[in-house]
Amino acid sequence: MNEEQQQTARREKRKKGLVIINTGTGKGKTTAALGTLLRAWGRGMRPCVIQFLKHEAGGWGEVRAAHELGIEWHKMGDGFTWQSRDMDETAAKATHAWEVARDKIASGAYDLIILDEFTYLLKFGWLDTDEVVDWLRENKPPMLHLIITGRDAPPALVDFADLVTDMHKIKHPFDEGVRAQSGIEF
Amino acid sequence: MNEEQQQTARREKRKKGLVIINTGTGKGKTTAALGTLLRAWGRGMRPCVIQFLKHEAGGWGEVRAAHELGIEWHKMGDGFTWQSRDMDETAAKATHAWEVARDKIASGAYDLIILDEFTYLLKFGWLDTDEVVDWLRENKPPMLHLIITGRDAPPALVDFADLVTDMHKIKHPFDEGVRAQSGIEF
Repeated sequence: MNEEQQQTARREKRKKGLVIINTGTGKGKTTAALGTLLRAWGRGMRPCVIQFLKHEAGGWGEVRAAHELGIEWHKMGDGFTWQSRDMDETAAKATHAWEVARDKIASGAYDLIILDEFTYLLKFGWLDTDEVVDWLRENKPPMLHLIITGRDAPPALVDFADLVTDMHKIKHPFDEGVRAQSGIEF
Repeated sequence: MNEEQQQTARREKRKKGLVIINTGTGKGKTTAALGTLLRAWGRGMRPCVIQFLKHEAGGWGEVRAAHELGIEWHKMGDGFTWQSRDMDETAAKATHAWEVARDKIASGAYDLIILDEFTYLLKFGWLDTDEVVDWLRENKPPMLHLIITGRDAPPALVDFADLVTDMHKIKHPFDEGVRAQSGIEF
Protein backbone atom coordinates (compact mmCIF):
# COMPACT_ATOMS: atom_id res chain seq x y z
CA MET A 1 0.00 0.00 0.00
CA ASN A 2 1.16 3.53 -0.71
CA GLU A 3 0.87 6.20 1.96
CA GLU A 4 -2.55 7.39 0.84
CA GLN A 5 -3.95 3.86 0.89
CA GLN A 6 -2.51 3.34 4.33
CA GLN A 7 -4.16 6.52 5.53
CA THR A 8 -7.49 5.42 4.08
CA ALA A 9 -7.12 2.03 5.72
CA ARG A 10 -6.39 3.65 9.06
CA ARG A 11 -9.40 5.93 8.69
CA GLU A 12 -11.71 3.07 7.74
CA LYS A 13 -10.48 1.07 10.66
CA ARG A 14 -11.55 3.83 12.97
CA LYS A 15 -14.99 4.22 11.43
CA LYS A 16 -17.30 2.11 13.50
CA GLY A 17 -20.78 1.91 14.88
CA LEU A 18 -20.80 3.53 18.30
CA VAL A 19 -22.45 2.28 21.45
CA ILE A 20 -23.72 5.45 23.11
CA ILE A 21 -25.23 5.73 26.58
CA ASN A 22 -27.20 8.75 27.79
CA THR A 23 -27.60 8.31 31.52
CA GLY A 24 -27.92 10.38 34.71
CA THR A 25 -30.78 11.83 36.71
CA GLY A 26 -31.27 14.99 34.64
CA LYS A 27 -33.37 15.77 31.60
CA GLY A 28 -32.10 15.20 28.11
CA LYS A 29 -31.34 11.47 27.94
CA THR A 30 -34.15 10.55 25.56
CA THR A 31 -34.20 14.04 24.10
CA ALA A 32 -30.56 13.85 23.02
CA ALA A 33 -31.26 10.45 21.46
CA LEU A 34 -34.08 12.07 19.48
CA GLY A 35 -31.70 14.78 18.31
CA THR A 36 -29.36 12.10 17.01
CA LEU A 37 -32.37 10.44 15.38
CA LEU A 38 -33.18 13.67 13.53
CA ARG A 39 -29.54 14.09 12.51
CA ALA A 40 -29.31 10.49 11.27
CA TRP A 41 -32.57 10.77 9.36
CA GLY A 42 -31.25 13.94 7.70
CA ARG A 43 -28.24 11.93 6.55
CA GLY A 44 -30.43 9.30 4.95
CA MET A 45 -29.57 6.67 7.53
CA ARG A 46 -32.00 3.91 8.50
CA PRO A 47 -33.03 4.46 12.12
CA CYS A 48 -35.30 2.50 14.46
CA VAL A 49 -36.56 3.36 17.95
CA ILE A 50 -37.55 0.81 20.59
CA GLN A 51 -39.18 2.15 23.73
CA PHE A 52 -38.89 -0.16 26.70
CA LEU A 53 -41.11 1.55 29.22
CA LYS A 54 -44.56 2.98 29.12
CA HIS A 55 -44.59 6.74 29.40
CA GLU A 56 -47.30 8.68 31.15
CA ALA A 57 -48.13 10.92 28.23
CA GLY A 58 -49.48 8.84 25.36
CA GLY A 59 -49.08 10.98 22.28
CA TRP A 60 -45.86 12.87 22.48
CA GLY A 61 -44.55 15.03 19.73
CA GLU A 62 -41.69 12.67 19.00
CA VAL A 63 -43.97 9.75 18.12
CA ARG A 64 -45.99 11.96 15.79
CA ALA A 65 -42.84 13.39 14.22
CA ALA A 66 -41.31 9.93 13.74
CA HIS A 67 -44.52 8.76 12.10
CA GLU A 68 -44.48 11.74 9.72
CA LEU A 69 -40.84 11.06 8.87
CA GLY A 70 -41.49 7.37 8.28
CA ILE A 71 -39.19 6.32 11.13
CA GLU A 72 -39.81 2.86 12.58
CA TRP A 73 -40.92 3.15 16.21
CA HIS A 74 -41.77 0.27 18.53
CA LYS A 75 -43.43 0.69 21.89
CA MET A 76 -42.57 -2.36 23.96
CA GLY A 77 -43.47 -0.72 27.22
CA ASP A 78 -47.24 -0.85 27.04
CA GLY A 79 -47.18 -4.20 28.76
CA PHE A 80 -45.12 -3.39 31.81
CA THR A 81 -43.97 -0.59 34.05
CA TRP A 82 -41.78 -0.62 37.09
CA GLN A 83 -44.91 -0.25 39.17
CA SER A 84 -46.00 -3.75 38.27
CA ARG A 85 -46.59 -6.01 41.24
CA ASP A 86 -46.30 -9.27 39.35
CA MET A 87 -42.55 -9.56 39.00
CA ASP A 88 -42.59 -12.84 37.08
CA GLU A 89 -44.89 -11.37 34.49
CA THR A 90 -42.81 -8.21 34.30
CA ALA A 91 -39.59 -10.17 33.80
CA ALA A 92 -41.26 -12.26 31.09
CA LYS A 93 -42.34 -9.14 29.26
CA ALA A 94 -38.89 -7.62 29.58
CA THR A 95 -37.41 -10.78 28.11
CA HIS A 96 -39.85 -10.59 25.20
CA ALA A 97 -39.01 -6.92 24.59
CA TRP A 98 -35.30 -7.76 24.57
CA GLU A 99 -35.97 -10.55 22.04
CA VAL A 100 -37.64 -8.05 19.73
CA ALA A 101 -34.70 -5.67 20.16
CA ARG A 102 -32.18 -8.45 19.44
CA ASP A 103 -33.98 -9.30 16.20
CA LYS A 104 -33.78 -5.67 15.10
CA ILE A 105 -30.15 -5.32 16.14
CA ALA A 106 -28.99 -8.54 14.49
CA SER A 107 -31.02 -7.96 11.31
CA GLY A 108 -28.49 -5.58 9.78
CA ALA A 109 -31.43 -3.56 8.45
CA TYR A 110 -30.60 -0.40 10.42
CA ASP A 111 -27.83 2.15 10.79
CA LEU A 112 -29.06 3.46 14.14
CA ILE A 113 -31.15 1.79 16.83
CA ILE A 114 -32.30 3.60 19.96
CA LEU A 115 -33.10 1.46 23.00
CA ASP A 116 -35.01 4.04 25.00
CA GLU A 117 -35.04 3.54 28.78
CA PHE A 118 -33.43 0.16 28.39
CA THR A 119 -31.23 0.57 31.46
CA TYR A 120 -34.19 0.00 33.78
CA LEU A 121 -34.55 -3.58 32.57
CA LEU A 122 -31.00 -4.14 33.78
CA LYS A 123 -31.27 -2.02 36.92
CA PHE A 124 -34.30 -3.94 38.16
CA GLY A 125 -32.77 -7.28 37.28
CA TRP A 126 -35.36 -8.21 34.66
CA LEU A 127 -32.46 -8.93 32.34
CA ASP A 128 -28.91 -9.99 33.20
CA THR A 129 -26.46 -7.23 32.33
CA ASP A 130 -23.55 -9.55 31.58
CA GLU A 131 -25.67 -11.64 29.23
CA VAL A 132 -26.89 -8.52 27.44
CA VAL A 133 -23.36 -7.17 27.04
CA ASP A 134 -22.03 -10.55 25.87
CA TRP A 135 -24.82 -10.81 23.32
CA LEU A 136 -24.17 -7.28 22.02
CA ARG A 137 -20.43 -7.92 21.82
CA GLU A 138 -21.02 -10.95 19.62
CA ASN A 139 -24.03 -9.89 17.58
CA LYS A 140 -24.14 -6.13 17.09
CA PRO A 141 -23.25 -5.39 13.45
CA PRO A 142 -19.94 -3.45 13.54
CA MET A 143 -21.31 -0.40 11.71
CA LEU A 144 -24.59 -0.18 13.66
CA HIS A 145 -24.86 2.79 16.03
CA LEU A 146 -26.71 1.89 19.21
CA ILE A 147 -28.03 4.45 21.70
CA ILE A 148 -29.18 3.29 25.13
CA THR A 149 -30.93 5.72 27.47
CA GLY A 150 -32.02 5.62 31.10
CA ARG A 151 -30.79 6.23 34.62
CA ASP A 152 -28.20 4.15 36.40
CA ALA A 153 -26.51 2.48 33.45
CA PRO A 154 -24.76 -0.58 34.97
CA PRO A 155 -20.92 -0.45 35.07
CA ALA A 156 -20.55 -3.45 32.73
CA LEU A 157 -22.63 -1.65 30.12
CA VAL A 158 -20.64 1.57 30.59
CA ASP A 159 -17.42 -0.43 30.13
CA PHE A 160 -18.74 -1.83 26.87
CA ALA A 161 -19.93 1.55 25.52
CA ASP A 162 -17.91 3.96 23.39
CA LEU A 163 -19.54 7.21 24.44
CA VAL A 164 -21.23 7.77 27.79
CA THR A 165 -22.79 11.05 28.88
CA ASP A 166 -24.24 11.85 32.28
CA MET A 167 -27.13 14.32 32.20
CA HIS A 168 -27.23 16.18 35.48
CA LYS A 169 -30.00 18.50 36.61
CA ILE A 170 -28.85 21.89 37.79
CA LYS A 171 -32.30 23.43 37.94
CA HIS A 172 -35.74 22.20 37.00
CA PRO A 173 -39.04 24.08 36.79
CA PHE A 174 -40.88 21.27 38.64
CA ASP A 175 -38.90 22.47 41.66
CA GLU A 176 -40.89 25.67 41.47
CA GLY A 177 -44.25 24.11 40.68
CA VAL A 178 -44.27 24.71 36.93
CA ARG A 179 -45.89 21.80 35.13
CA ALA A 180 -44.39 19.82 32.26
CA GLN A 181 -44.86 21.61 28.96
CA SER A 182 -46.26 19.65 26.00
CA GLY A 183 -44.07 19.71 22.90
CA ILE A 184 -41.06 20.56 25.02
CA GLU A 185 -40.76 17.93 27.70
CA PHE A 186 -42.87 15.14 26.20
CA MET B 1 -65.22 30.99 40.08
CA ASN B 2 -66.24 27.44 40.90
CA GLU B 3 -63.65 24.88 41.89
CA GLU B 4 -63.10 23.61 38.36
CA GLN B 5 -62.54 27.12 37.03
CA GLN B 6 -60.11 27.80 39.83
CA GLN B 7 -58.21 24.64 38.98
CA THR B 8 -58.07 25.66 35.31
CA ALA B 9 -56.86 29.12 36.28
CA ARG B 10 -54.14 27.64 38.48
CA ARG B 11 -53.12 25.31 35.69
CA GLU B 12 -52.99 28.11 33.12
CA LYS B 13 -50.95 30.22 35.47
CA ARG B 14 -48.35 27.52 35.58
CA LYS B 15 -48.24 27.00 31.84
CA LYS B 16 -45.42 29.14 30.57
CA GLY B 17 -42.69 29.32 28.02
CA LEU B 18 -39.55 27.82 29.50
CA VAL B 19 -36.03 29.15 29.34
CA ILE B 20 -33.91 26.01 29.00
CA ILE B 21 -30.11 25.82 29.15
CA ASN B 22 -28.10 22.80 28.00
CA THR B 23 -24.58 23.37 29.24
CA GLY B 24 -21.52 21.42 30.39
CA THR B 25 -18.44 19.98 28.73
CA GLY B 26 -20.04 16.72 27.52
CA LYS B 27 -21.86 15.76 24.35
CA GLY B 28 -25.57 16.26 23.97
CA LYS B 29 -26.13 19.99 24.43
CA THR B 30 -27.07 20.77 20.83
CA THR B 31 -28.29 17.21 20.30
CA ALA B 32 -30.84 17.46 23.10
CA ALA B 33 -32.03 20.79 21.67
CA LEU B 34 -32.55 19.03 18.34
CA GLY B 35 -34.57 16.34 20.09
CA THR B 36 -36.82 19.02 21.53
CA LEU B 37 -37.02 20.56 18.06
CA LEU B 38 -38.27 17.24 16.65
CA ARG B 39 -40.76 16.88 19.49
CA ALA B 40 -42.06 20.43 19.06
CA TRP B 41 -42.36 20.02 15.30
CA GLY B 42 -44.35 16.83 15.91
CA ARG B 43 -46.74 18.86 18.06
CA GLY B 44 -47.30 21.38 15.29
CA MET B 45 -45.40 24.11 17.10
CA ARG B 46 -43.54 26.85 15.21
CA PRO B 47 -39.81 26.41 15.85
CA CYS B 48 -36.77 28.39 14.76
CA VAL B 49 -33.06 27.62 15.13
CA ILE B 50 -30.32 30.24 15.29
CA GLN B 51 -26.74 28.98 15.22
CA PHE B 52 -24.24 31.39 16.68
CA LEU B 53 -20.98 29.70 15.82
CA LYS B 54 -19.56 28.20 12.71
CA HIS B 55 -19.21 24.45 12.92
CA GLU B 56 -16.43 22.53 11.28
CA ALA B 57 -18.65 20.14 9.37
CA GLY B 58 -20.69 22.07 6.85
CA GLY B 59 -23.57 19.83 5.93
CA TRP B 60 -24.75 18.06 9.02
CA GLY B 61 -27.76 15.85 9.11
CA GLU B 62 -29.69 18.27 11.30
CA VAL B 63 -29.57 21.08 8.75
CA ARG B 64 -30.76 18.75 6.02
CA ALA B 65 -33.50 17.34 8.23
CA ALA B 66 -34.68 20.81 9.27
CA HIS B 67 -34.79 21.85 5.63
CA GLU B 68 -36.89 18.79 4.75
CA LEU B 69 -39.24 19.53 7.64
CA GLY B 70 -39.58 23.18 6.68
CA ILE B 71 -38.02 24.37 9.93
CA GLU B 72 -36.51 27.86 9.87
CA TRP B 73 -32.75 27.67 10.43
CA HIS B 74 -30.35 30.61 10.57
CA LYS B 75 -26.60 30.28 10.54
CA MET B 76 -25.17 33.41 12.10
CA GLY B 77 -21.82 31.86 12.73
CA ASP B 78 -20.38 31.89 9.25
CA GLY B 79 -18.92 35.32 9.91
CA PHE B 80 -17.06 34.64 13.12
CA THR B 81 -15.46 31.96 15.21
CA TRP B 82 -13.66 32.14 18.50
CA GLN B 83 -10.42 31.75 16.60
CA SER B 84 -10.84 35.20 15.09
CA ARG B 85 -7.95 37.56 15.75
CA ASP B 86 -9.86 40.75 15.10
CA MET B 87 -11.81 41.13 18.32
CA ASP B 88 -13.60 44.35 17.35
CA GLU B 89 -14.91 42.73 14.20
CA THR B 90 -15.90 39.63 16.12
CA ALA B 91 -17.79 41.63 18.73
CA ALA B 92 -19.56 43.60 15.99
CA LYS B 93 -20.66 40.37 14.33
CA ALA B 94 -21.82 38.97 17.65
CA THR B 95 -23.87 42.11 18.23
CA HIS B 96 -25.43 41.75 14.81
CA ALA B 97 -26.26 38.08 15.42
CA TRP B 98 -27.90 39.00 18.73
CA GLU B 99 -29.96 41.68 16.94
CA VAL B 100 -31.26 39.06 14.52
CA ALA B 101 -32.09 36.76 17.45
CA ARG B 102 -33.89 39.58 19.30
CA ASP B 103 -36.06 40.26 16.26
CA LYS B 104 -37.04 36.60 16.09
CA ILE B 105 -37.67 36.37 19.83
CA ALA B 106 -39.72 39.55 20.07
CA SER B 107 -41.71 38.82 16.89
CA GLY B 108 -44.13 36.46 18.58
CA ALA B 109 -44.00 34.33 15.43
CA TYR B 110 -42.51 31.26 17.14
CA ASP B 111 -43.31 28.78 19.89
CA LEU B 112 -39.73 27.56 20.27
CA ILE B 113 -36.44 29.28 19.49
CA ILE B 114 -33.09 27.54 19.86
CA LEU B 115 -30.05 29.77 20.37
CA ASP B 116 -27.36 27.23 19.59
CA GLU B 117 -23.94 27.86 21.17
CA PHE B 118 -25.07 31.26 22.34
CA THR B 119 -23.24 31.02 25.67
CA TYR B 120 -19.88 31.60 23.97
CA LEU B 121 -20.90 35.13 23.00
CA LEU B 122 -21.35 35.81 26.71
CA LYS B 123 -18.37 33.80 27.89
CA PHE B 124 -15.98 35.68 25.62
CA GLY B 125 -17.51 39.03 26.50
CA TRP B 126 -18.77 39.81 22.99
CA LEU B 127 -22.15 40.50 24.59
CA ASP B 128 -22.92 41.69 28.12
CA THR B 129 -24.70 38.93 30.06
CA ASP B 130 -26.70 41.30 32.29
CA GLU B 131 -27.95 43.26 29.29
CA VAL B 132 -28.96 40.05 27.53
CA VAL B 133 -30.82 38.76 30.58
CA ASP B 134 -32.53 42.11 31.17
CA TRP B 135 -33.62 42.24 27.55
CA LEU B 136 -34.99 38.68 27.70
CA ARG B 137 -36.80 39.38 30.96
CA GLU B 138 -38.61 42.32 29.37
CA ASN B 139 -39.12 41.12 25.81
CA LYS B 140 -39.42 37.35 25.64
CA PRO B 141 -43.07 36.50 24.91
CA PRO B 142 -44.37 34.63 27.99
CA MET B 143 -45.35 31.51 26.07
CA LEU B 144 -42.18 31.27 23.96
CA HIS B 145 -39.85 28.38 24.84
CA LEU B 146 -36.21 29.36 24.51
CA ILE B 147 -33.34 26.87 24.48
CA ILE B 148 -29.78 28.11 24.88
CA THR B 149 -26.86 25.73 24.40
CA GLY B 150 -23.12 25.94 24.97
CA ARG B 151 -20.44 25.47 27.61
CA ASP B 152 -20.01 27.68 30.64
CA ALA B 153 -23.45 29.27 30.84
CA PRO B 154 -22.89 32.42 32.97
CA PRO B 155 -24.46 32.38 36.48
CA ALA B 156 -26.81 35.31 35.72
CA LEU B 157 -28.22 33.35 32.75
CA VAL B 158 -28.58 30.21 34.88
CA ASP B 159 -30.43 32.25 37.52
CA PHE B 160 -32.83 33.51 34.86
CA ALA B 161 -33.46 30.07 33.34
CA ASP B 162 -36.19 27.61 34.33
CA LEU B 163 -34.46 24.37 33.42
CA VAL B 164 -30.70 23.91 33.36
CA THR B 165 -28.97 20.64 32.54
CA ASP B 166 -25.27 19.94 32.72
CA MET B 167 -24.03 17.39 30.16
CA HIS B 168 -20.99 15.64 31.54
CA LYS B 169 -18.73 13.29 29.64
CA ILE B 170 -18.08 9.97 31.31
CA LYS B 171 -16.42 8.36 28.33
CA HIS B 172 -15.79 9.48 24.76
CA PRO B 173 -14.50 7.51 21.77
CA PHE B 174 -12.12 10.34 20.81
CA ASP B 175 -10.23 9.30 23.94
CA GLU B 176 -9.48 6.05 22.18
CA GLY B 177 -8.78 7.50 18.75
CA VAL B 178 -12.14 6.76 17.13
CA ARG B 179 -13.12 9.58 14.79
CA ALA B 180 -16.42 11.50 14.85
CA GLN B 181 -19.17 9.59 13.07
CA SER B 182 -21.27 11.42 10.48
CA GLY B 183 -24.99 11.30 11.13
CA ILE B 184 -24.36 10.61 14.79
CA GLU B 185 -22.13 13.34 16.11
CA PHE B 186 -22.68 16.02 13.45
